[in-house]
Amino acid sequence: MTATVRSPGAGDLYPTRVPGSAAPFRRRHPVVWHKAAEGPLSSGQLDAYDRDGCLTFDALLSAEETAACLEETARLTADRSLRDSGRVVPEPDGNGIRSVFEVHALSGTFREIVHSDGLAGIAHQILGSDVYVHQTKVNLKSAFDGSGFGWHSDFETWHSEDGMPAPRALSLSIALTENAPYNGPLMIIPGAHRTFVPSTAETPPDYHHTSLQGKNLPAGPANRAVVTALARELGMRQFTGPAGSVVAFDSNSLHASAPNVSPFPRTNLFVVYNSVENTIGTPYAAPRARPTYLASRTFTPVPRPAHYGG
Amino acid sequence: MTATVRSPGAGDLYPTRVPGSAAPFRRRHPVVWHKAAEGPLSSGQLDAYDRDGCLTFDALLSAEETAACLEETARLTADRSLRDSGRVVPEPDGNGIRSVFEVHALSGTFREIVHSDGLAGIAHQILGSDVYVHQTKVNLKSAFDGSGFGWHSDFETWHSEDGMPAPRALSLSIALTENAPYNGPLMIIPGAHRTFVPSTAETPPDYHHTSLQGKNLPAGPANRAVVTALARELGMRQFTGPAGSVVAFDSNSLHASAPNVSPFPRTNLFVVYNSVENTIGTPYAAPRARPTYLASRTFTPVPRPAHYGG
Repeated sequence: MTATVRSPGAGDLYPTRVPGSAAPFRRRHPVVWHKAAEGPLSSGQLDAYDRDGCLTFDALLSAEETAACLEETARLTADRSLRDSGRVVPEPDGNGIRSVFEVHALSGTFREIVHSDGLAGIAHQILGSDVYVHQTKVNLKSAFDGSGFGWHSDFETWHSEDGMPAPRALSLSIALTENAPYNGPLMIIPGAHRTFVPSTAETPPDYHHTSLQGKNLPAGPANRAVVTALARELGMRQFTGPAGSVVAFDSNSLHASAPNVSPFPRTNLFVVYNSVENTIGTPYAAPRARPTYLASRTFTPVPRPAHYGG
Repeated sequence: MTATVRSPGAGDLYPTRVPGSAAPFRRRHPVVWHKAAEGPLSSGQLDAYDRDGCLTFDALLSAEETAACLEETARLTADRSLRDSGRVVPEPDGNGIRSVFEVHALSGTFREIVHSDGLAGIAHQILGSDVYVHQTKVNLKSAFDGSGFGWHSDFETWHSEDGMPAPRALSLSIALTENAPYNGPLMIIPGAHRTFVPSTAETPPDYHHTSLQGKNLPAGPANRAVVTALARELGMRQFTGPAGSVVAFDSNSLHASAPNVSPFPRTNLFVVYNSVENTIGTPYAAPRARPTYLASRTFTPVPRPAHYGG
């Protein structure tokens, strides 16, 4: 696949959701922002993340921490007062819960984990600056009925709908239950984070009311011919691991996951760290900004681990 | 999980689709019918099949054969005269084709493969008798949109809707494209073929008009609590392999597969051999028999390979 560089519109280096205009182009920003930065990752790990847009960790959370997160998830999903807050997203068929957003604001357990050095330190090092929490959620992906996620770049959404200027953000997908090959684990096309794939449809008003369920998506999904070409060229990775294992991935990674038809739930915590030098503003391609439980507008840095120095 | 043995109704050793009556019970027939039978399988392979209800083969079809099958599949799915024959089952969302049935009657290529010693010899040996072809189909499971199959035992359907007396039948799932962990491959609970899991709903009239699409299934799907208990006890296998690889599995195996959200189609040929001593009759639990393109009522034996003797 040949990536084409387009002339950017004024101030918008990643034009997308422009009807009829969809040629993919090369990412305009780094992936690893300061290769010499101190932190938990070796230079080999930084190189791998730079190349693939993703990196795995065997056990960043303890068994006690994942158990506590699952307990908190059960508490939050049972809390009927949250149902109308928008934070609790039902499954598209109406049976069960697909996601709970902003869990770090709803639970001290999640807040502590999200702010821990073990997790935030990875983001500090890769993004080369202080970071803040852009979004958190738990995707429940229940046994038998848990729905999937089609091919997309998170940055394409955050740029369009939240006003994130550049792909200087990073997600951690943290297994709270085992992620097996058969219960809908994360898939990434390694290396596709170097290509920005514009979407061809305009963002409908209040799009998040339906888009978070993953059905009837005019805007956001990556062009299928482009996904196919990139996957043929670059391959495919599917991430499996026990509870406590983690995948860190670039905000512009092309990723998806299958529905879960197995009898084992696949429940993951997602944490998105954004650079404090990349704070969000006016949406680039949406009528209005999304609620802050989907895209925080409080840019308070996560405390920098002491050993990183000043 | 403790399997409970129920009193069978007169002449029906596998009562199912009786509202309110759903306790699972132990299979009442053998899995491997003649362990001393000659054939392509070693005694170790027969033991593994007996224990697990499934067995894999690396390359039973050549690259030329799988390519020819894919060409024939393309021809059959493009043939508009077949669309109203019932043999071509659309995807539940109406986009694309989910399955094509009775391919061995529609194509000499498929017929030759289905009747080949390399495939039928496995069925001969395990079922311990001459065999005939009960059903064939190609499941296309297209890239991005290919739908999945929920947990079920094929025998539960063939017994209820086709009048198959005993689980003395065997399926081959033959990869025509690579079956990867991420494109919706077959999952089986190994050992669950020893347990019969009755369904609790009566078979609606002309059920195959909707059931083959896999949506809104009152009758047929295995009870979820039972599936969960069996999977916790026995584990889970997901079968991957290149084009030409094969999984043989018992007609009462509990199996399922996820939808395919990957950019790579997962297209498999399914061939069901039944023992000539187990020919089908009046359905045990359905208003009327299904069409013969779903359940053959021509019981002509596949020619027995010469080296098996008389």
